[in-house]
Amino acid sequence: MEDRCPVSDADTAITVLGPAKIPSPLPYCRFDDDTARVRLELDASDFGPGRGPCLADFELAGPRGRIYFDSSKVKVAIVTCGGLCPGLNDVIRAIVMECHHNYHVAGVLGIRFGLQGFIESYGHAPMELTPQSVSDIHQFGGTMLGSSRGPQKPEDIVDSLERLNVGILFVIGGDGTMKAARRIQEEIARRRSKISVIGVPKTIDNDVNLVTKSFGFDTAVEKATEAIRCAHTEAIGALNGVGVVKVMGRESGFIAAQATLALKEVNYVLVPECSFTLNGERGLLPSLEARLRARKHAVIVVAEGAGQNLLPDTGARDASGNPVLGDIAQYLCGEIEAYFRDRQMPLTLKFIDPSYIIRSVPANANDRVYCGFLGQNAVHAAMAGKTGMVVSRLFDRYVHLPLDLVTLKRKKLNIFSDYWRSVLESTGQHEVTPFTDAPVVFCPA
Amino acid sequence: MEDRCPVSDADTAITVLGPAKIPSPLPYCRFDDDTARVRLELDASDFGPGRGPCLADFELAGPRGRIYFDSSKVKVAIVTCGGLCPGLNDVIRAIVMECHHNYHVAGVLGIRFGLQGFIESYGHAPMELTPQSVSDIHQFGGTMLGSSRGPQKPEDIVDSLERLNVGILFVIGGDGTMKAARRIQEEIARRRSKISVIGVPKTIDNDVNLVTKSFGFDTAVEKATEAIRCAHTEAIGALNGVGVVKVMGRESGFIAAQATLALKEVNYVLVPECSFTLNGERGLLPSLEARLRARKHAVIVVAEGAGQNLLPDTGARDASGNPVLGDIAQYLCGEIEAYFRDRQMPLTLKFIDPSYIIRSVPANANDRVYCGFLGQNAVHAAMAGKTGMVVSRLFDRYVHLPLDLVTLKRKKLNIFSDYWRSVLESTGQHEVTPFTDAPVVFCPA
Amino acid sequence: MEDRCPVSDADTAITVLGPAKIPSPLPYCRFDDDTARVRLELDASDFGPGRGPCLADFELAGPRGRIYFDSSKVKVAIVTCGGLCPGLNDVIRAIVMECHHNYHVAGVLGIRFGLQGFIESYGHAPMELTPQSVSDIHQFGGTMLGSSRGPQKPEDIVDSLERLNVGILFVIGGDGTMKAARRIQEEIARRRSKISVIGVPKTIDNDVNLVTKSFGFDTAVEKATEAIRCAHTEAIGALNGVGVVKVMGRESGFIAAQATLALKEVNYVLVPECSFTLNGERGLLPSLEARLRARKHAVIVVAEGAGQNLLPDTGARDASGNPVLGDIAQYLCGEIEAYFRDRQMPLTLKFIDPSYIIRSVPANANDRVYCGFLGQNAVHAAMAGKTGMVVSRLFDRYVHLPLDLVTLKRKKLNIFSDYWRSVLESTGQHEVTPFTDAPVVFCPA
Amino acid sequence: MEDRCPVSDADTAITVLGPAKIPSPLPYCRFDDDTARVRLELDASDFGPGRGPCLADFELAGPRGRIYFDSSKVKVAIVTCGGLCPGLNDVIRAIVMECHHNYHVAGVLGIRFGLQGFIESYGHAPMELTPQSVSDIHQFGGTMLGSSRGPQKPEDIVDSLERLNVGILFVIGGDGTMKAARRIQEEIARRRSKISVIGVPKTIDNDVNLVTKSFGFDTAVEKATEAIRCAHTEAIGALNGVGVVKVMGRESGFIAAQATLALKEVNYVLVPECSFTLNGERGLLPSLEARLRARKHAVIVVAEGAGQNLLPDTGARDASGNPVLGDIAQYLCGEIEAYFRDRQMPLTLKFIDPSYIIRSVPANANDRVYCGFLGQNAVHAAMAGKTGMVVSRLFDRYVHLPLDLVTLKRKKLNIFSDYWRSVLESTGQHEVTPFTDAPVVFCPA
Repeated sequence: MEDRCPVSDADTAITVLGPAKIPSPLPYCRFDDDTARVRLELDASDFGPGRGPCLADFELAGPRGRIYFDSSKVKVAIVTCGGLCPGLNDVIRAIVMECHHNYHVAGVLGIRFGLQGFIESYGHAPMELTPQSVSDIHQFGGTMLGSSRGPQKPEDIVDSLERLNVGILFVIGGDGTMKAARRIQEEIARRRSKISVIGVPKTIDNDVNLVTKSFGFDTAVEKATEAIRCAHTEAIGALNGVGVVKVMGRESGFIAAQATLALKEVNYVLVPECSFTLNGERGLLPSLEARLRARKHAVIVVAEGAGQNLLPDTGARDASGNPVLGDIAQYLCGEIEAYFRDRQMPLTLKFIDPSYIIRSVPANANDRVYCGFLGQNAVHAAMAGKTGMVVSRLFDRYVHLPLDLVTLKRKKLNIFSDYWRSVLESTGQHEVTPFTDAPVVFCPA
Repeated sequence: MEDRCPVSDADTAITVLGPAKIPSPLPYCRFDDDTARVRLELDASDFGPGRGPCLADFELAGPRGRIYFDSSKVKVAIVTCGGLCPGLNDVIRAIVMECHHNYHVAGVLGIRFGLQGFIESYGHAPMELTPQSVSDIHQFGGTMLGSSRGPQKPEDIVDSLERLNVGILFVIGGDGTMKAARRIQEEIARRRSKISVIGVPKTIDNDVNLVTKSFGFDTAVEKATEAIRCAHTEAIGALNGVGVVKVMGRESGFIAAQATLALKEVNYVLVPECSFTLNGERGLLPSLEARLRARKHAVIVVAEGAGQNLLPDTGARDASGNPVLGDIAQYLCGEIEAYFRDRQMPLTLKFIDPSYIIRSVPANANDRVYCGFLGQNAVHAAMAGKTGMVVSRLFDRYVHLPLDLVTLKRKKLNIFSDYWRSVLESTGQHEVTPFTDAPVVFCPA
Repeated sequence: MEDRCPVSDADTAITVLGPAKIPSPLPYCRFDDDTARVRLELDASDFGPGRGPCLADFELAGPRGRIYFDSSKVKVAIVTCGGLCPGLNDVIRAIVMECHHNYHVAGVLGIRFGLQGFIESYGHAPMELTPQSVSDIHQFGGTMLGSSRGPQKPEDIVDSLERLNVGILFVIGGDGTMKAARRIQEEIARRRSKISVIGVPKTIDNDVNLVTKSFGFDTAVEKATEAIRCAHTEAIGALNGVGVVKVMGRESGFIAAQATLALKEVNYVLVPECSFTLNGERGLLPSLEARLRARKHAVIVVAEGAGQNLLPDTGARDASGNPVLGDIAQYLCGEIEAYFRDRQMPLTLKFIDPSYIIRSVPANANDRVYCGFLGQNAVHAAMAGKTGMVVSRLFDRYVHLPLDLVTLKRKKLNIFSDYWRSVLESTGQHEVTPFTDAPVVFCPA
Repeated sequence: MEDRCPVSDADTAITVLGPAKIPSPLPYCRFDDDTARVRLELDASDFGPGRGPCLADFELAGPRGRIYFDSSKVKVAIVTCGGLCPGLNDVIRAIVMECHHNYHVAGVLGIRFGLQGFIESYGHAPMELTPQSVSDIHQFGGTMLGSSRGPQKPEDIVDSLERLNVGILFVIGGDGTMKAARRIQEEIARRRSKISVIGVPKTIDNDVNLVTKSFGFDTAVEKATEAIRCAHTEAIGALNGVGVVKVMGRESGFIAAQATLALKEVNYVLVPECSFTLNGERGLLPSLEARLRARKHAVIVVAEGAGQNLLPDTGARDASGNPVLGDIAQYLCGEIEAYFRDRQMPLTLKFIDPSYIIRSVPANANDRVYCGFLGQNAVHAAMAGKTGMVVSRLFDRYVHLPLDLVTLKRKKLNIFSDYWRSVLESTGQHEVTPFTDAPVVFCPA
């Protein structure tokens, strides 16, 4: 069955700038080397129903005994792009600390406001990052460097890197940013420059391919549950109270699903992976009516990317180039209110959008530890001369993944998995949406 | 100067159902009696500029040695009305515990879903409240009884009270509810019934006349600061980042002001008590532009009732009879975006509305203690045969206030006070809005 | 009855360094002046049973229109002494911000490690405090200046103040520190120096005379309830589980009492103000046995200064000169274990000492606002040339109190008050300890 | 290299009570079956230095299409044993919900106070567990069933199970409890009874063999970091301040290590896996002295089982049969104080023991989700007729493990791993304790 596995050993090979000849300055007598690989069984069904298990080899992350850069001479740059996510400052801090304390680099530059910071006309001078200047930043949410959306020309960025004499660039950002990093690396290769580009994938939606759980996700779910709990409190506090909570998740419903599992009071969870209908036999609105008649209150969690089929295409794109989604939460609220008004049933609907509260808090303990390892391993990889890759935690192992592989596709909820079945069991949704292979109206589609 | 004091001793007199002849069942040998009054100096300027101090007497709350009701025979009812507020369950719990454990009443009924619960046609049967059924409710936000908005006929309510054989009614709610309580008490008096009506004023806006700080306010401010901190994180995370946070406060800006003092990152706080203009010499938008050019980020906290003069009158009223306010936060966001778009200045605006998250959390320790005393003292007052009154904490004393007095007017921020001056100093707003008596454009008006 | 009032107007008079002739630099057209006083009715029973109410006048805090110091030339020093307390950094921050932003002082020095920082031989150089260096400190617990216990010679301290050219000294500390401040002021007066000494009373025990609630107390109670909740969880998780929680309170049981009111699960609260016995008819141990036989679990909260009569006098004193208390919590645990071992009753006793966790957390929103006002008002008072005084919040008003008055005695729980009665009702302790005037064995004594 | 793998396929085979012939009542059309296995690469070095990687097959958890028990007729029992751990109530809740809502079992019994609850002489009647009675328990820490330590005779337990007509027993507990579960299963097998025994391993120390991270561990670490942060605040608040925090970890230092990684302020972490010395060239005390001379403050985190070689063997055993450890934290505090007293260096040492606070809080969102899956999968396994096994999450997969395998040995920190190296880098300890294979004095030994 392994021949059907979508990830081959060739797919996982990592590019290097050149041979690693310099002894590591790290005071260890034993090191992982590049032959250190781990064989992981990927979740077959993640690649579609009917597929069997597949095993693939991945390069393990970690410090190498011999490195490529003369670490005491190399200059390093860090840039953060896209929306906020808990843990950004932790990753920055870990990179700075590892670079300074262990590799004793010549300097670390913080690029301001995302990729804009490379473009002179914006006038954002880079800031010098030292152990002292980053020592407390993990106590604060957001990114101390600032961020921005949207691409900049790879040529301009590489010009800037060369001008700043940067040997290693750490890029922390989402899917679009990882694609930009790929283009930067290509431009570098074209020039035969010796600059390493290492990505740390950031997405609060948890939708990075081959990353089991992206950093900040745990924290985001924890905060989301607080908002959902409030929605539940509001719902039970009024006759036919309905709490609607919108959470992040443009193409993947991980936050919605995980928060639903963490908090037991959600009655409907709507995610991009499952289309649903509002009316008719398996429609959400009649089901909600039955729920209210029986129990007097309900909580609905809706990912921002759910139910797009119900909305007209906005046609627009944001600064990052992502399609502007239709506002499913507002649409849903309007439809619910109209439905119950038509039936002259009293209704008290409360809508909560906790998005910015979720993504701008400091990371929790678990994410902090995680971000620490991501940052450290990113530095180890860069020093060893690797490039065009990201650091990932896959099934509890830290591994190197080529940029091409992580941007190949977005990870999505597997609606044929035990995980999703548990979500449906928690909500009770499965009474209207049996978990079967057969196409059903409501969900899964 | 005291002759100008707006509260006379006659205003503070409390009505009783009849003489208190029955020895209290409480196992204490010393009791407060009705001659126990406290003389309090009210804040003169709360009643307008130029007024001097005034002293008024208030009846102290507390258990009485002789009571009116045969406590073991009396039946008690509790109703919660209007929007959620942290501490509702604590007040319910305290009333039930005091009634059962100390006065050994015949029973406590919880009226469901506000005043609707008195009206048979709604079909909400009251629930029996016992020490066991309420023992853990303080761990949860909201109200275990449910709530609703809007009045019901006093005649129907008193019919219901008589049918249920209720001797004491505890009404927990806001300004409109206290007015309803007053009408219920009048209907009772008209019928010469012997039913006590005791109010516990609830308002997350902290705008009850002669209540220094209403229950739940502390908790609400604590939660509001969390949202504002997130707005600050978002603001500094983007070039020209502006965080706009809408908080509750229909007619009074207490939450906005207090949260601003608690968190030092707010740059503009907009409250109903101060009109402001958007454009012109002292306008908010030019000031914001200057702020962004100098510091690159800003946080604006806006109370829902601020700036209504800038909006067309909605003309509508909600179920509670309150005017439906114009949406100042959305208006403001739109104007800010248009202003900077016109000037081709980049802007990243994030809007946060934490309202339902603020009001539905469990009370913090301070509010819990406070709610406990409110509930206990409400029971003591009722047992002593008092009626048509509320329990209040005024300058750290628990006192009895006639319903007429608390509904006379809404408490507002005194914009001539040291308190408001401190708010302006914290924001730095006073650079554009000097704290003077002279009319200024921006604020105070 | 007012003639029996223990506080006379003479007691509340504030000393000044000289006439205030310089116009305030603050941009306000209206100011409080020194004739602004507030008449407050003190709680009679706080001064002993049988006393009537008493009214006393206090000078209101706030900015003055004319000040004593040429603010742009004066140098300011801040010192923090004694144990940690939530809010210390907030007070420091507020003083620095007020001094710099509003009075534009010549400089603010932070004295390191308490009064030791004045003594050259310790070698702790003062640090310059600027708006930038303090802007984030309120996010952290503790004191950025460090602290220490124990006195230093007033002569040496004044020498140091003169050498540093300091005109205003802010002293933040407990009872012993306020006495030291008094001695420093006396030494200054003896030398006819023109240095203002202003105190901000700090005590997590909430035992400052004429301060309704000291800063940090709210936060401490909030944290204490978390520990007590854990003790309750442990107690119900085991057969005959007993959770014993030790909280701060050397001479006053405020934290123990308030936490008990905030959390409903405490069964016994032991405070310094009430002696109690372990054995005999009203003894704690037989009562605990009865409780365990009936309910299988119990929670005991014990203030560190409770039950000292049961322990041998340690005879020792700590660096601050306070007597070293006997360890009542350990004694109690030992006695409980022995008692049940003797009776061959199984017992699972868990002891929690959350003291350092309680006192080292950042202040909550309420305490932050409070500390802001304390700091600002301390600066206003100093600039006006006042000395030998502290800023206090008394019945929700900010007032000036002479150092002599606040160090006259420690505030204690009034065990004849409604407050303490509510505590006993919450615990159920009053079944074994009726709230009466008659001497009872267990409590109140 | 796989031949050296310490886990063979035979080791992972699961026992069944009999053939699974009954169609599952779950409304799914696709099920995992027993051939669903996952091949996992175990961390070689976990089994000692010098070992290569090893791959082993494990049975995947999940619902089966055909089950052994007639689920509507079977009665289920749950028992919780040993110390508290966050998430116990979540596991109980998940089992009850799965049993009732999906398998519609005849009843679920909660056994009170651990294995004692099976023994009639204790008189703890089992309680009936329904969806309603458990619906809110996840909001509370601890275990609603109560717990106890120590073994009971397997014969008596099986007698009780038969008398109660129980077909499935879920045992939630630690290492000792899993061994007891094994003995219960053996007794059942001896009688040829058809009772399934399924374990859910609980250990706050995270030391279960082949469980990547045990439930509650995340929550415990989160709380531990709060205590350590306080220790840091105390340390910097005093001259030569030293904060010592004791955390759980009898034989494994996972909490200490993970909390150290999550919080950056720890300077020394002492764990059972590393012996250390106090004096001499690499001794802790001289290192601490150097640290204080350089930085004036330090934080030490010590696992309860660390440094036992420095203490006399207590010789005692607790009710669970575990050796009573020497009190390393108190010993360490005493030695530190003596050392600096000898050198006449001032020292302010604060000791914090947050153990009971850490283990009795409710689970965080992450642990809640985890506990939900553990409970559900335990039910699926039991219904399928499996016995003598536990449910584990291993490298992000839920698998079945034989009881023999999990109790084979305790999981320990691998002090040759990248993980431990990161810990040392975070503390800076490696300056005195190089991470090498060579024996070093301080750590690793």
